[in-house]
Parts: sequence; structure tokens; C-alpha cells
Amino acid sequence: MKYFGHGSKEIVERIMPKDEARQKIKGLKQIAISGRCTRECINIAYGFFTPLEGFLGREDVDSVCNKMTLADGTLWPIPIILDVKGEEIRDKNIKAGDTILLTHTGRPLAILDIEDIFNLDKMKIAEAVLGTTDDKHPGVNMLNKFENTFIGGRVTIVNPPRFQPPFDKFWYTPRLLREKIAEKGWKRVVAHQTRNVPHSGHEWLMKGAWFSANGELPVEKLQTGVLVNCIIGPKRAGDYIDEAIVLCHQQLHDSGYFRDDIHMVSFSLWDMRYAGPKEAVFHAILRTNLGCTHHMFGRDHAGVGSYYDPYDAHRIFDRFSEEKLNIKPVRILEWWYCPVCGEVTYSGLCGHDKSRQNFSGTLIRSMLQDKVKPTRLIFRPEVYDKVMECADIYGFGSPFCTEKYLAERQPVFTLPPL
Amino acid sequence: MKYFGHGSKEIVERIMPKDEARQKIKGLKQIAISGRCTRECINIAYGFFTPLEGFLGREDVDSVCNKMTLADGTLWPIPIILDVKGEEIRDKNIKAGDTILLTHTGRPLAILDIEDIFNLDKMKIAEAVLGTTDDKHPGVNMLNKFENTFIGGRVTIVNPPRFQPPFDKFWYTPRLLREKIAEKGWKRVVAHQTRNVPHSGHEWLMKGAWFSANGELPVEKLQTGVLVNCIIGPKRAGDYIDEAIVLCHQQLHDSGYFRDDIHMVSFSLWDMRYAGPKEAVFHAILRTNLGCTHHMFGRDHAGVGSYYDPYDAHRIFDRFSEEKLNIKPVRILEWWYCPVCGEVTYSGLCGHDKSRQNFSGTLIRSMLQDKVKPTRLIFRPEVYDKVMECADIYGFGSPFCTEKYLAERQPVFTLPPL
Repeated sequence: MKYFGHGSKEIVERIMPKDEARQKIKGLKQIAISGRCTRECINIAYGFFTPLEGFLGREDVDSVCNKMTLADGTLWPIPIILDVKGEEIRDKNIKAGDTILLTHTGRPLAILDIEDIFNLDKMKIAEAVLGTTDDKHPGVNMLNKFENTFIGGRVTIVNPPRFQPPFDKFWYTPRLLREKIAEKGWKRVVAHQTRNVPHSGHEWLMKGAWFSANGELPVEKLQTGVLVNCIIGPKRAGDYIDEAIVLCHQQLHDSGYFRDDIHMVSFSLWDMRYAGPKEAVFHAILRTNLGCTHHMFGRDHAGVGSYYDPYDAHRIFDRFSEEKLNIKPVRILEWWYCPVCGEVTYSGLCGHDKSRQNFSGTLIRSMLQDKVKPTRLIFRPEVYDKVMECADIYGFGSPFCTEKYLAERQPVFTLPPL
Repeated sequence: MKYFGHGSKEIVERIMPKDEARQKIKGLKQIAISGRCTRECINIAYGFFTPLEGFLGREDVDSVCNKMTLADGTLWPIPIILDVKGEEIRDKNIKAGDTILLTHTGRPLAILDIEDIFNLDKMKIAEAVLGTTDDKHPGVNMLNKFENTFIGGRVTIVNPPRFQPPFDKFWYTPRLLREKIAEKGWKRVVAHQTRNVPHSGHEWLMKGAWFSANGELPVEKLQTGVLVNCIIGPKRAGDYIDEAIVLCHQQLHDSGYFRDDIHMVSFSLWDMRYAGPKEAVFHAILRTNLGCTHHMFGRDHAGVGSYYDPYDAHRIFDRFSEEKLNIKPVRILEWWYCPVCGEVTYSGLCGHDKSRQNFSGTLIRSMLQDKVKPTRLIFRPEVYDKVMECADIYGFGSPFCTEKYLAERQPVFTLPPL
């Protein structure tokens, strides 16, 4: 079965059978790549980044920065680039036209057919994509740590990653996810991007968005689903631990806060750039490739600090026709607990704005840290129990990333010997 | 400003200036018409029934029964017909080509340019429109009481009705409503058809439908509204009194359960046929003419007894293209109170179907009758207070229609002397 993704292009799949791969890699020059480049290489090869077939060359990078499109005109907001040390390229005499082996953790990952080796002004990218060159912005800080030489060219996975529990059950490539969506009979799928353990505000964000996506569809047999797509990538101290994010979203499902036939949990690997509106567009493209028809965008989507207006990520979608972006934004205001209504309600509907009680991340965090079980109206008890269980099993006692967790956690995936 | 309604036809407005009317009616033969025909004459003349300009002639009635369209092919599910006594027509020597004056409560209402005088097999209409000839069906029973001669032809109001408090504030003709919608800046309007005092299940029906209608629209400035359009018409003992229906919906608004900028209350005059799916189509047409872009259809919409399947009124909309019906159905399952979630939730989303507590009309009715104030999660306290106030002021002590109310209530509108 053929599946089509962003730009109406066929979903990219560049995975070489193992026997062929073992022959192919013999004698290739090797470069060890970073965790980020490994994750992006996997994304490219499985089609998460369709239509990209490899890391961008200079012409595409320039086009993305200047026009928010690839050189061929396809909408694309964030350059996907492979950074390497200049001296390593020179020392190993690596040139355009070479095929090299990319390795990670000492194991083969993918081959790369080099089309372009080039330098970039990283702060030009920062200014164009992030709108700032301030190193306090985590996306700028990330860019500043990139090596200074870049390699563009198609990649092909030679050694597929093995996802470790508990992530293995939630790993769906675009192809697998589309097969799952077909099996569920969903005609519309609305993506929920998250890096959070869900409180009932998040739950209702999704429930409200379900209605927005479902629109005028028949409901006797439900044909719209919510796809929770957790972002798994590098963490900072104080973030929820990855295991708690996926397992607590699944707990919401298993405990019946969502019907089995309208909700599922998955994740994607991605190193957040916190690029606000441009990252929102990037998420939209990613979820187009996953088979979603709609994408939720709340307040401050993918933003950080005060670099973007809270609704910049809503507004950017005004610019794109359906031809350019084949997924519909579902723009969302805030859900809050309203003591007058006596329930969780939507700021766009409820007129009791003077009585509202916002879901405060700080409050919920401190409740979890002090092991105070919140009321079921703001945090589901089964989710509370699960986050505490995750703290014990995965978090060295904490549901939030500690230095110990960051240093000693089990990897999300490993590369086996080839 | 020109407005367009069902069939993309210009909204009908056939109201004669009073001075002209006083001259015009002089010497005309008169026929006194029933309450139903009066309401429908008003609806025709103000464009609620656009593109109808008058009561249907035989050709249109046959077409509506056989093909669910007017003779010109426009979708139309229920014949709008003026029934008169055959002997009165004969005694007054009224013929096709005559212009006559229609009166009600002894006052002039409208002139009718007669195009057609004819007889009908009322049970053929019943079978075609209601799917039954069983006199226990209230729509069949209504038809059985129609006179046996029918007059088709264009009507023009010569004496506009004066709506009485508390209805006057909620009376919007299609033109007035569209002006109001433009003033509110709504791009989409979802209609809620009701003959109920709202409990929080109804409130959430509307809130969920708001999301369905709003879809991918921007939300920084909300552009989608819920139009509560109460059906005011003949009552049966045990129905909510008309005054409580409109005032309690307004109370929900005034007490902030809806923001002022996304919700408004109005009513239409209509004698329910309980025609299930065909009446659902009729309601869709009516609300198209009011300027709505979406229409809510719940379980058992406009049904009665077990004459229709609970979701027949959902399924009938599968048949129509946007060309035939320029309003989108928002199909709704049930909202219930879920004790596990601790809140009102949607049966299409909540998996706790074994724990659900349906909003039972019987339970709520008995609470109101016994003056037991329900919890705010199932019935808003301000709405409870308002329904009790309406009972005192309008209902002779009861929020439900009693024989006394039916006999002695104040009229919804009067016709002044011309």
C-alpha cells in the first residue's frame, strides 16, 4: 500500500535489508554522529520528514531560511542538517560523491550518499528560524553547539533501531501508524503534541479538539480519532521523565477517560527547537506524515520565554492554503477549572473568567513533588498513581528529570550489532 | 442588504406598508384562519420558509410527498398548506384568481392571491411525510383535524404581529437575525433547536457543537456562535411552558455559562409535526434561512414514540449534497454525567459507559415538580431559580403546561387593529 504525506509526496522509506546492508557497509569511511542527528536520520529514513530523503544541502538550507520552503518550493520551516567536525572530514578525506557510514554508540546506523559538504552561518539560521540570536533561547543555544561543517545527502538506514520498553509499544513509523489508523476506521485524526503528563485540562483540550476535527461527520460509528504523539528527545532537569509522559497518556486511555475507539498514544523522536510558530508548522508537517488530518495548537505552542506572542503559532496558519499544508490547524484557547460551572470548561465558552482557576503547571508539579493526590476534576487518580509508579521504576524516585536520571536513564532505543 | 437562504434564493419578505394595506384590503372577501395557518403565514411572509412565497398548490404538495422537493426541484420535506372549510369557499364564491383577506382573532393578517383551490388525500400526506397513518402519532392526529379543502397562493402580511413580553425580546425575523449575526461578527452559526428548559446536558450539547462548527477557524477573536432557536407553538399538558423555555435559555447566557460573544437566544413559531428525519431536514432549512451554517441533531430529533429509529434524523443528511442543503449537520450522541470523570461528558469520548448517569427528563421533571434544587453539575442553580420564577409569573404555579395554562395563558403575539 502506498501512503502519501507532506507535499502530497509518497511516504519516504529508506531501509536496507540486513543482508544487503552487511555487504554494502564493508570498507566505508565512518562518521560517528550525535544523538540528535541519529534521531533525525531515523526520522528521515522512516518518512517522518517526508519528502526529505536525506540531510539538507546548502541550497535547501538557504531556501528554508529565506523562504520557508525547500528549493523545490515545498513548505519547510526548519533546516534538518548533519553537523560534523571540519577536521574529521579533512582527516578522513571525505568528499562529495562518497558514500559513508554513519554510526552511533559505536554501531552502524545508516549510509549517506554525500551530495554537498558546506559551511553555514549558524546565527543566520537562528535569526531566520528562531527570530533571535540570543543564546538564552534554547534553540539558539542548541545551534551554537553544532559543529561548523555540514554534510547534505540521502540517507538509508542499514541497522534499524530497537526501541526499549516501555517505548516499544508506542513506536509507530508513518507506515505502521497509517495501517493502524486504517484498522481503526478513522477518517479524520487530530494530533495532540505533548511533552507533559496529562492533567484534565490537557484531557479536555483533546476532547474539545475531537469535536472540532469531527465536524459534520456521522457519529453512529465514530470515525475521528485523537492521536497523542509525545515528543521524545533530550530532556532538561525538571521536565517530566519520558516514560511517565507516554505511560500516563496511555493510562488515561486504559482508565476509560477516552473510549478505546477514538484515541491512541504514540511518540516521535524530536529535539525541540522551541521555534514557536515555525516549529508549529514543522509539527503540522510531521503529523501530516503520520496520517493526521488535523493538529491541535494551544497557547504558546512550541514557544519559550517571551520570544513569541502566545498566539503567533495560531496566526502563522492563516498564510497557508490547503495545497501547501494538507492538515487543518485546530486552534485552541485555554481550558480551566470553573468553580461556578463546577467543572473543567473552555475559556472560549465560559463567561466566568473572573472566577476561573487556571491549570497551573507549578501547582500540579508541587502537588506531585509533595505526593499530594489532587482532586479527580483536575488530575485523574489513575494518572497520579501511574506517574508515581513511573517515578519509582524509571525516575530514581522522581517524576521529573533529575541529574541522576539524565545521566543514568535507560536509552529509548539501542542499535544492535549488525 | 440582500440576504440569501435555502436553495440560494433571496430571503422572502412580503410585508405591505400599513397605508397601502388599509386601501388594499377594502372590500376583500375574508377567511378566518387557524392558529397554525397564522403562524405559517407569518413564517412565509418574513422568509422563515424561503423560498416559499405562499401556501403550496397541489403540484408542489404532490412533489413534496413523492420526491421531497418542490415542483421546481428545491429540497422541501413538509407541505405547508392552508386548510379551509369547503362550504365556506362555496358560500363565499371564492375562486382561483381572487385576492382574499386572511384574518385571525377577528383582525386582518394577510392577503392571499389564490392560485389553486384543491382537495387532498390527507392520509397520503401522512404516509409520505410521517411514514405512518396511525392517529396516535401527533402529526397524523394534527393532519386528521385539518379541513378538507386547500388554498394555494402567495401571501403578503398586511398587519404585522406584535409579540408580547417576554417573547418580544427574542423575536428575530431572518433579516433581523442576519443583521444581528453580522453585528456579532460570526462567520459560522450553529443552531440549537429546543423545546426544553436547559439542563447541563443540553448546555454541553451546545458547547460540544460549538467546537464542531468552529473547526479550524481562528479563535483569538471568536467567530462562531450558538443560536438557540426555541420552537414556540401549540403545547400539550406536561410540556415546559413557552416562557420558561426562552427565559431559562437566556438565563444560562446571563449567568455566564456562555460568553456573551458566542451565544444568543431566539425563537421561531412552528407547530411540530414530529416527523423525525423529514422534520430534521425541515429544521435545517428553517435555520439556513435564519443565517445558520450548522445545525445540531441529537438522538431522536423531532421524533415521537418509536415511529423512527433514534438516528434516522442523523442518517437522512447522508443523502444531500451542499448544493441541495447549504447547512452542515452536527450529529450528536449523548452527553451524560459520569461519576468516574466527576463531570458531564460525551458518550462518544468517555469510556465509562457502565457508570454513566443519563440526564433523565423524568428525574429532572420530578425534581422541579417537588421543588428540589438539583446539583449545579446537572442543573444550573440560576436556571432553577428562573424556571420557578416563570412558574409563578406565567405558569399558574407550574413550570409545566397545565389545563389552566393552556386555556388562560397570554398569547405569544397579537394582531393590532389595522
